[in-house]
Amino acid sequence: MEYTVYRSRMDRVRDEMKKQGIGLFLAGPSSNLFYLTGYAVNGDERLFLLALPAEGEPFILANVLYRDQAAGLPVEELVCWKDGEDPFALLKREIEGRRWPVNRIALEAQIPALFSLPLAEQFSHSGFTLGSPLTDPLRLRKDKVELDLIRRASGIADQALTALINRGRYWLGKTEAQFRDALVAEMGAAGVKAWDLIVAAGANGAVPHHVTGQSLIEAGKGLLVDFGGALEGYNTDCTRTFHFGRPDAEFEKIYNTVLEAHLAAEAAARPGNVLGDVDLAARSVIEKAGYGPYFTHRTGHGLGIDIHEGASVARGETTPIVPGMVFSIEPGIYLSGRLGVRIENLVAIGPEGPEVLHRFPRNLMVID
Amino acid sequence: MEYTVYRSRMDRVRDEMKKQGIGLFLAGPSSNLFYLTGYAVNGDERLFLLALPAEGEPFILANVLYRDQAAGLPVEELVCWKDGEDPFALLKREIEGRRWPVNRIALEAQIPALFSLPLAEQFSHSGFTLGSPLTDPLRLRKDKVELDLIRRASGIADQALTALINRGRYWLGKTEAQFRDALVAEMGAAGVKAWDLIVAAGANGAVPHHVTGQSLIEAGKGLLVDFGGALEGYNTDCTRTFHFGRPDAEFEKIYNTVLEAHLAAEAAARPGNVLGDVDLAARSVIEKAGYGPYFTHRTGHGLGIDIHEGASVARGETTPIVPGMVFSIEPGIYLSGRLGVRIENLVAIGPEGPEVLHRFPRNLMVID
Repeated sequence: MEYTVYRSRMDRVRDEMKKQGIGLFLAGPSSNLFYLTGYAVNGDERLFLLALPAEGEPFILANVLYRDQAAGLPVEELVCWKDGEDPFALLKREIEGRRWPVNRIALEAQIPALFSLPLAEQFSHSGFTLGSPLTDPLRLRKDKVELDLIRRASGIADQALTALINRGRYWLGKTEAQFRDALVAEMGAAGVKAWDLIVAAGANGAVPHHVTGQSLIEAGKGLLVDFGGALEGYNTDCTRTFHFGRPDAEFEKIYNTVLEAHLAAEAAARPGNVLGDVDLAARSVIEKAGYGPYFTHRTGHGLGIDIHEGASVARGETTPIVPGMVFSIEPGIYLSGRLGVRIENLVAIGPEGPEVLHRFPRNLMVID
Repeated sequence: MEYTVYRSRMDRVRDEMKKQGIGLFLAGPSSNLFYLTGYAVNGDERLFLLALPAEGEPFILANVLYRDQAAGLPVEELVCWKDGEDPFALLKREIEGRRWPVNRIALEAQIPALFSLPLAEQFSHSGFTLGSPLTDPLRLRKDKVELDLIRRASGIADQALTALINRGRYWLGKTEAQFRDALVAEMGAAGVKAWDLIVAAGANGAVPHHVTGQSLIEAGKGLLVDFGGALEGYNTDCTRTFHFGRPDAEFEKIYNTVLEAHLAAEAAARPGNVLGDVDLAARSVIEKAGYGPYFTHRTGHGLGIDIHEGASVARGETTPIVPGMVFSIEPGIYLSGRLGVRIENLVAIGPEGPEVLHRFPRNLMVID
């Protein structure tokens, strides 16, 4: 990404800071720092911060160990500290030296208590607020470069799942973990770094955030695969539920209900509606079929640099749907101890309606 | 791990809370929560907390999506919230209902601002402090089960690196990322989940936290490999620096200086000394050789569930070295734009001195 892209994102945050009367925004390693500077390194116990003032030139505070990485970022000023020094006191001196107003300081949401508590102590006369309102509205609408990465990542995910499912009955007797490892490798070979995937065999599908393990993939049961990963920092996210061998009438009914809910939500995902309308569309179908209590989560979530960001496709959400939004549509029905079905696609909102980012079929695939 | 192990760890934290006058300890997904409950799931935007009072039965606050995982933890009481509800208000009601004193609340160090700021608002009459002093002293000394996992993980790391280095000149012309991927796969096959490894070819070795990339492994240059990963939640960490083809006199001199520093530090790593003595031993060797300014970091760090935890092997550290400690010894010399050498082993402190957890040779290996 170009220098000017990052600088213009920072400027838009600064505009918002001025409107909200926030003098200083502090961000450590996080998706927001990646968005604002391209810095993709994980945080550790050494304080690393972007100090972005409403007015004036921002600086990066970094341990000298990170000097070379920090020097490559689109921020001109770099303040380094060494192990043994107090970086919080240094930060305070630097900010006082610049005479930045710090009545109100915004903290990026991922700053850990390890740093936020000492910051609160150093700046004991300041009020603290979450930085999310400064960055979330910007990140809600993806630009062309961002959209392209999510689109490409989604295509790679589709192809990876296709390659695995083409092996058919090969998977019988294999573990969830084996399926996951193969999927991770398949996506990895195409440049998508997978996150912790959910591969849930049989009744494990009823646990929406099941931890993939040693359970076996068996005939006569379902297999739920919730998977994705990042391409150059941007994520895809997709879920499909398969059945090995002929499903019984109940599984089929539940699957078709979830599919109908999914399609209804997709149709509602267009400018002019609010996010709550998408949730309502899915939820109504499931409630009418009598499975309301078994759809235990919201219909979807925004996505981009983070797997969950921005839009929340939930009951009562009044945020208008606007072009540039990317979110998941993923209704599900879960019968504890028995089975679970979820079908998830990403959609990118265009001026006329949703662009569906996945091409993997959504109808029930019976593998036998 | 057994129920009683976790309960006894929680009890030791509670004893410390009583001594320090802390009424409540709040911990979200983190290594400390893993240590106290075995819960290994990553945190997300949904509040998940262990509420551990100085007196009384602890509870877990979790979104209903995480009910099944939370129910498996060694905590009897589970309080669930649903999307759309305010989990912070619920937490407050639950705590008030139990009449727990909350004058002083300790926050686990990894709780993000996303949660710590709303907590500060809900409990606006409470004082907040970091929970680290409650848990760090416990985690500093590893028990038998913990030590065994770190020992096994280190053995697997040794074997994986051996397998790669045995390929010799095969690596010439390959990228850092290819070397990394092979090492990740090798460790993964033996059950160690690798973290982001540092593979630094040539001058990249001079950046202590280099980001592994597309640079080529070339003849006539060094290759620095800083690698490790976790076995059932416990980490290993090791660094070796190789040279492809005959090194020049300067590289050799620097390598031997680092090795001498490493061995001096190892000899100082025994009960009776303090952590600063270990740093001093390594640093003196490097300073005497005239490379003092090019050894830009501390000599080592504690390790366990976290890659960096507990002990800091740094200048002036007065913490006594005691049996059960596990830390790295990793002096290095970095000439920016030219070369870097680091040699790192883990040691576990026994009553008589260090047990070295790695068997991979430390002398300079020339690959040609």
